[in-house]
Amino acid sequence: MSATSTSVNGNGKYKVIGTRPIRPDGVDKVTGRALYGIDMNLTGMLYGQILRSPHPHARIRGIDTSKAAALEGVRAVVTAKDLPPAGADEVISLVEGTFRLTHLRSNILAGDKVLYQGHSVAAVAATSLHIAEEALRLIEVDYEILPDVVDVVAAMQEDAPLLHDDLTTQEFGEDSGKKSNIASHIQFKLGDLEKGFAESDIIVEEEFNTASVHQGYIESHNATAEWKTDGQLTVWTSTQGAFGVQKQTAGILGIPVSKVKVVPMEIGGGFGGKIPVYLAPQAALLSKLTGRAVKIVMTRTDVFQSTGPTPASYVKVKLGADKTGKLLAAEANIAFAAGAFPGSPIGAGAVCVFSCYDIPNGLVNGYDVVLNKPRSAAYRAPGSTQVNFAVETLVDEIAEKLGMDPIEIRLLNAAEEGMRRVDGAVYPRIGCRETLEQARAHEHYQTPLTGPHRGRGIATGFWMNAGLKSTVTASVNEDGTVNLMEGSTDIGGSRASIAMQFAEVLGLPAEAINPMVGDTSSVGYTELTGGSRVTFATGWAAYEAANEVKRILITKAALYWEAKVEEVRFEDGDFIHASDPEKRLSFKELASHLVDLGGPVVGTGAVDPDSGVGGSFTTCLADVEVDPETGKVKILRFTMVQDAGTAIHPSYVEGQMQGGSAQGIGWALNEEYFYSEGRMKNASFLDYRMPTCLDLPMIETVIVEVPHPQHPFGVRGVGEASIVPPPAAIANAIYDAVGVRLRDLPMRPDRIFSACLEKQAATVAT
Amino acid sequence: MSATSTSVNGNGKYKVIGTRPIRPDGVDKVTGRALYGIDMNLTGMLYGQILRSPHPHARIRGIDTSKAAALEGVRAVVTAKDLPPAGADEVISLVEGTFRLTHLRSNILAGDKVLYQGHSVAAVAATSLHIAEEALRLIEVDYEILPDVVDVVAAMQEDAPLLHDDLTTQEFGEDSGKKSNIASHIQFKLGDLEKGFAESDIIVEEEFNTASVHQGYIESHNATAEWKTDGQLTVWTSTQGAFGVQKQTAGILGIPVSKVKVVPMEIGGGFGGKIPVYLAPQAALLSKLTGRAVKIVMTRTDVFQSTGPTPASYVKVKLGADKTGKLLAAEANIAFAAGAFPGSPIGAGAVCVFSCYDIPNGLVNGYDVVLNKPRSAAYRAPGSTQVNFAVETLVDEIAEKLGMDPIEIRLLNAAEEGMRRVDGAVYPRIGCRETLEQARAHEHYQTPLTGPHRGRGIATGFWMNAGLKSTVTASVNEDGTVNLMEGSTDIGGSRASIAMQFAEVLGLPAEAINPMVGDTSSVGYTELTGGSRVTFATGWAAYEAANEVKRILITKAALYWEAKVEEVRFEDGDFIHASDPEKRLSFKELASHLVDLGGPVVGTGAVDPDSGVGGSFTTCLADVEVDPETGKVKILRFTMVQDAGTAIHPSYVEGQMQGGSAQGIGWALNEEYFYSEGRMKNASFLDYRMPTCLDLPMIETVIVEVPHPQHPFGVRGVGEASIVPPPAAIANAIYDAVGVRLRDLPMRPDRIFSACLEKQAATVAT
Repeated sequence: MSATSTSVNGNGKYKVIGTRPIRPDGVDKVTGRALYGIDMNLTGMLYGQILRSPHPHARIRGIDTSKAAALEGVRAVVTAKDLPPAGADEVISLVEGTFRLTHLRSNILAGDKVLYQGHSVAAVAATSLHIAEEALRLIEVDYEILPDVVDVVAAMQEDAPLLHDDLTTQEFGEDSGKKSNIASHIQFKLGDLEKGFAESDIIVEEEFNTASVHQGYIESHNATAEWKTDGQLTVWTSTQGAFGVQKQTAGILGIPVSKVKVVPMEIGGGFGGKIPVYLAPQAALLSKLTGRAVKIVMTRTDVFQSTGPTPASYVKVKLGADKTGKLLAAEANIAFAAGAFPGSPIGAGAVCVFSCYDIPNGLVNGYDVVLNKPRSAAYRAPGSTQVNFAVETLVDEIAEKLGMDPIEIRLLNAAEEGMRRVDGAVYPRIGCRETLEQARAHEHYQTPLTGPHRGRGIATGFWMNAGLKSTVTASVNEDGTVNLMEGSTDIGGSRASIAMQFAEVLGLPAEAINPMVGDTSSVGYTELTGGSRVTFATGWAAYEAANEVKRILITKAALYWEAKVEEVRFEDGDFIHASDPEKRLSFKELASHLVDLGGPVVGTGAVDPDSGVGGSFTTCLADVEVDPETGKVKILRFTMVQDAGTAIHPSYVEGQMQGGSAQGIGWALNEEYFYSEGRMKNASFLDYRMPTCLDLPMIETVIVEVPHPQHPFGVRGVGEASIVPPPAAIANAIYDAVGVRLRDLPMRPDRIFSACLEKQAATVAT
Repeated sequence: MSATSTSVNGNGKYKVIGTRPIRPDGVDKVTGRALYGIDMNLTGMLYGQILRSPHPHARIRGIDTSKAAALEGVRAVVTAKDLPPAGADEVISLVEGTFRLTHLRSNILAGDKVLYQGHSVAAVAATSLHIAEEALRLIEVDYEILPDVVDVVAAMQEDAPLLHDDLTTQEFGEDSGKKSNIASHIQFKLGDLEKGFAESDIIVEEEFNTASVHQGYIESHNATAEWKTDGQLTVWTSTQGAFGVQKQTAGILGIPVSKVKVVPMEIGGGFGGKIPVYLAPQAALLSKLTGRAVKIVMTRTDVFQSTGPTPASYVKVKLGADKTGKLLAAEANIAFAAGAFPGSPIGAGAVCVFSCYDIPNGLVNGYDVVLNKPRSAAYRAPGSTQVNFAVETLVDEIAEKLGMDPIEIRLLNAAEEGMRRVDGAVYPRIGCRETLEQARAHEHYQTPLTGPHRGRGIATGFWMNAGLKSTVTASVNEDGTVNLMEGSTDIGGSRASIAMQFAEVLGLPAEAINPMVGDTSSVGYTELTGGSRVTFATGWAAYEAANEVKRILITKAALYWEAKVEEVRFEDGDFIHASDPEKRLSFKELASHLVDLGGPVVGTGAVDPDSGVGGSFTTCLADVEVDPETGKVKILRFTMVQDAGTAIHPSYVEGQMQGGSAQGIGWALNEEYFYSEGRMKNASFLDYRMPTCLDLPMIETVIVEVPHPQHPFGVRGVGEASIVPPPAAIANAIYDAVGVRLRDLPMRPDRIFSACLEKQAATVAT
C-alpha cells in the first residue's frame, strides 16, 4: 500500500527528520531472517500446551491430571495450585493501571472458577507438540456450569450472574461495598450541565452499541521460558514491552523482577494486545518443574478466545447546541465490557468522548463492567473509537438539522489551545482545527460525489499521547557510526524514527546509526511500546543521548587540539576550534581519532516526559456506496488527515494512518465477536471478517504538522488516532447515501438492509 | 583444586571487595546451559571446513576447486582470490601492535605461498560437515616445495630460506632495506654496560632455548558468520575481545567496522590465543556467497598446527655482580620465533628480562624472527617466561657461587618504587620485595627438604598490567538490583570481580548486581580481555558507572524529599537528608520509589587508564624429586606468592595463580612443539603432554596486597604473572636435587638423564 501524501511542513528546518530512509530491520524481515518468538528454539526444549475452558462460566470442582502426567513424553502438568497464593488486596502497578494480583493469576491459571470460554485451566509440557495436545485430552476437569452473561448492559443489572464473589463497585474511587459486576464507576463534570441544556436550541440523544473486536495481529502469542536452578528465569517472547512482561511475570510468579530477564523478539503486530502476559508464567512453571526450556504458542482460536479484544460498549450521549451550531452541553453514559476481570480503558473513553470540542458544560459517567468474555486488552487508542462513534454521529445529526456543513460545525466547536476538557485537562497547542481545515481544502472534499446510493461522511477523532520512561544508550564506533541500544520494542518502524532523531542532533546521516532493541538486562528501564509514545519519548531519550555524545565529543576535540573545552563548538555537523576555524573535524574524522583520546564515547538518555495533554487529532473523509439489495457497503474513497506534530519519517506516519484507517473500517463494517450461548462462534480468520486489501480503496493521507510544544523536535505520537473516526465517518456516509442512521457496530449488511426496510416502511406509512 | 591462601590484607576497609561470592555464570556452566561458540546454530546454517597446507613452505602454482564445487551438498569454495587485494603498506593497528594487512589476509587464506604446515589454503561450505570434509579432498593444489626453517637461530642466518620476498629488517624502528627473516631488531640501554661489567667481581653468561608451546585452551576455535544482503555481517565466536575480532574481520574483508557485529559467546579458555581471528573471515566470505549462515570449528590438530603457540626463543644473558651479590650489569640478546608473520612479543620480552632487579647498567637486543611455524600468538605474560628462565637461572648461579641464600640475593637487588628499568620506565609503588619476604617467611621455605635427589628452587617473575579502553553501563532495577553490561569477555571470573567493584561503591551486596557481557553493538568500545587488564580497567569503568549512578540517585533522593541536591549525602549505603537525618533511604528503598521520580537511572563508565608501569610480581617455591634412572621430575610441593594489589575476589586470584603455575610447570617439564622435517609431530593432546591434575601437587597460594596507587581500589592485574617463574624455579630445584643446570625447555626426562650422565662422566674424568 503506497500513499498519496501531502505534508504541510516545508520549513526545511531539519536535515534528517522528514526524510524517508530505508528501515534498518527491512532486509531481515523481507528475507525471512528476522527472529520472531516462535523462532526461538533451545536445546532440549519442551513444547507446552494450554487446556482451556469450553464453558463461559463454571465452578471447577476438581481437576485430575494423573492420566495426562502418565502419558509417555509428558514431563509436567501445572494448574492454579502451582501458582503462589495471592492475598485479596495484593496489587501490581502497571502503566495501564493497578491490578489485583489474584485477578492476573486467575487469568493465567483459573482457580475455583472459569470465567470465559478459553480461560486457561491447566498447562502441559511434553517432548512434542502432539504429545502435549494429546495430554490435554487426558486432563479431566469436573465443571459445575453456572449462568453466564456476555452483554455489558445485562451484566450491570442487579440480577445478573456475578463473576466475582469479592468484587464491589469502586464508586468515584471509594469502595461502595456493593457486590456487582460493575467494577468501577467514574465521573467527570464541567460547568453547569442543566443550564447548558436549558440554553440549547437543539438537543439530540441516542444510544449506541459496539461489539468486541480483536486487534487481529498476524503473529499469535508465544513465550519460551527457561528457569534455571539458580532461580534466574529467562523469557523470550513477542511483546510490546519487555519490562512489562518482566513485571507481570515476576508478580504472577511471586519472585523479584531482577530474577526475570525478558528478551523481546521481533513482533508481528500488537496494537495494544501484546501488553498483557498470557503464556510466560505457565511456560516458566513448566520449565521450573522440568529443568528444560518450554515454548508455548497459541493457535488463532486461542488468540481470539483467550486474549484481549477491545471492550464491547454501550454508550448513551446527549448533546445540546444553539441555533448557530455552537455546542453548549454534553452528557455521556459509557459502559465498557472489561471481560472477566476489571480493567477496561473506561478512563480513556471518558476523557476522549468530548475531547474534540470546546463544550462548556459536560457530564460523563463511565462504568467498568466484568462479564463472561476474555479479559479485554488495549487496542489502538483504547476506548476512544467506541465513544467517538456516538458523538460524531450526533454532531452530524445536529449539523443536518441546522443545515450546516459538517466540517463547518466542527470548526465552529473545534478544540483549541487553552480549552478545558471535561476531565479538567487544559490543552496546549494542538492541531484539531488544522486537520479540519486540511480536510475541507482537500480535493477529495472539494470534488462532488455523484451517483445513486452514494454518500460522504466526515468525522474527527482524538487520542492522547503517553510520555513514560525510556532509555537509549549510544556508543560511537571508530568509523563514525553509532550503535543505539533502545528499550522500546519496534512495531511500526521506531528503530528508524528514534535513530533519525539521534542523527539529527549530530548532523549524521540516518544510515550512520545502527539501532537495536535490547532485553531487560541490557538496556535501561523502558516502558511499553504503546500510547503512541515511542517516537515521542524514546526519540526524546535519543535526543538526550545524542547531546551527551556531543558534549563528550567536544571535550575530545579539545583534547585533540590541546585546546580548552570552551574553545570548541559544534556547528553544521562539525566540531570547530572557535579561535582557529581552520581546525575543523567532522563527526567521522573525530571518531577516527578517538582511539587516542581516552575512554570510549558512550552517551545515555533516560527520560520520563510528562505525557502532555496535547495528543493527536485526525479528521477523515469517507465516500461509500450502499447496495440497497444486500446492505453491503463499498468504500469508494477514503482520506485521513492527521496532526503528526513533526513527522520524523513521513512514510511510517502514513503507514500508521493507513493501518489505523484499515482497522477502523473493519471495526465499522465487519468485525465482531459473534456470541451464542456465551460462546464465540467465529474464532478464526475465516469467520471473523477483517478487511483485506481487496475490501479497501487506496487510503489517502495528509500529514498536518503542528509541532508538539513540549518535545525537542515537536513530535506527536501518531500510532493510534487514525483508528478513531472511521466508524463514525462511514456511519455518516451511509446516512448520506441511503438515509439511515446506524447506531450499532459493526454496520453489517443485514443491519443496513433492515434499517433501509424500516425506513421504507416508515415512509410508506406516513 | 582448592587453595591454601594467606592474604596479608586485613584492614577491613571494604565490605564486598575481598569476599568470595558465587560466580554469576557458575550455574550455567556446571549445568551445561552456557552457550559456547560451537553451540551456535542458525536455521539453514552451512558447515565450513578449511583446507590446510601439508607443507611447511611451498609456492602455490595453482588451485583447482572445480571438483569440490561440483560435489553435491557443497555450496561454496573460497580461496585467497576472494579476499580484497591489500597494498603492501596497508596496516591495521591493534592493541598488540601494528600489522600489515597483507600478512593478516595471507594467514587467513594463503596467497602465492604457504608458510607453515597447517596454513589455510581454501575454505568450503556444505550442507553437512562430512560433505565439507569430503570436498577438501577434492581440491587440487599444485605445490612447489621450498626449503623450510623452523629454528629461530637458523632462521636469522643470512643463508636461511626467506619466507617473505618483501620483508626487510626494521632496525630500531627504521627500515634497514635489508631482506631477512629478522622482521625487527629493537634495543634498550641503561647506564654504562662496560663499566658495570668491569666493576663486577663475578660474571655469568649462558645461552638458553625454549620450545614453542601452546596455550592449550580446552575449547577449540570457532566462528559462525552470517552476511546479510544489506551488507551487515554478524559473527558469533569465542574470543578474548569482540571489538578486536570486529576490527580484524573488517580489516581483512575490507569493510567498515560498523558493518560487522561480533557476538562473543562463552569462552573455554584463551590465555592470549583467542585474540587473533582464524575463521571468521572465511566463514563470512562463504556466507556472502551462499546467503546462509556458516559455522566453522577447528579440530584439535588444526588448533595446534594453525593457531598461535607462544614463540620459541633463543636467549643469551650475561650478568655481573660484586662480591656482596649486588647486580651491576646485565646484557641480553633475545630472539623470538614470530612464526610465519612478524609480530612476536619481543618488546615485552625485552622489557621484562631484567624487570625484577635494580641493575644500573644494562643492554637488551631483541629480534623478531619469522620462520615456517604458525604465526605466534600471545600466551599469558607473553615473552616474559622465556626470558625469566634465563635470568633467574643465572641469578641462582651467582647466589650459589657467592654462597648466598637465593631469596637474600633477590631481596638485595629487588626492584623498588622509583627504580628505572632498562626500557626507561620508572616504577611506582610495587610489591616485588613483599613477594620475596612472604616467600621467605612461608612455612614452605622454613621447612627443610630432606631425602635423596630432592631439591628446592626459587624464582621471581614480573608481568606488566595493561590499562586500555573499557566501558560499563549500569541500569537500576526497581527491586534494588542493578544490571551491569560490560564489554569484557569473562574468562577468569571477571563478571564477578567487576560487579563487586560496582557493588562496593554503592554499598550493595555482590548478589544485587547482574553482570553481563555485551556484543559490539550493545556496549561501548572495550578492548580485549588480556594484559591482566579487565579487573583493573573494566573494574575501574564499573567504579565510574557506580559513581554516576550514585550522583543520579542523590538527585532522585532530593526529588523524593523535595530537598536540594546539596542537602543529600550518601553514607554507609544509605541516602541521607543532611539536615533531617530521620530521612534515610537505602539503595533498595530509593530504587522502589524511582518509578515516580522521573527517568530511568542509567550510569556509564568509560575509561582508558594509563597502564601504569607497576605491574604484578610473583615469587615461587618449588620442591622436586628427580628420578636419576629416568630423568623424570616429580613436583613435591609448590607455592606461589603474588602481589595482587587489592584482591577483589580472592578465590579467583588464587585460581589465576594456580592456573598460571600449572601452565608454567607444563612449559618447564613437558610441553613443546616437536618438529621433524618442518612438521609438528605431536599435534594432539595425546602426544602434546600437558600436565593433568595427577601430575601436579596442590598449588599453594599466598596473596600479597600492595595496592596499585593509580587504581581507585588499588587493583593490580593478576592473570598472568604466575606463569613466569615456574620454569626457572624448577630448573633451580633440579640443580639443587641432582647438580645439573638445564638450559633448554622443556626439561624433559631425556635431557635431565643425559645431563646427569654427562655430569657423572665429568666427575669420573676429574
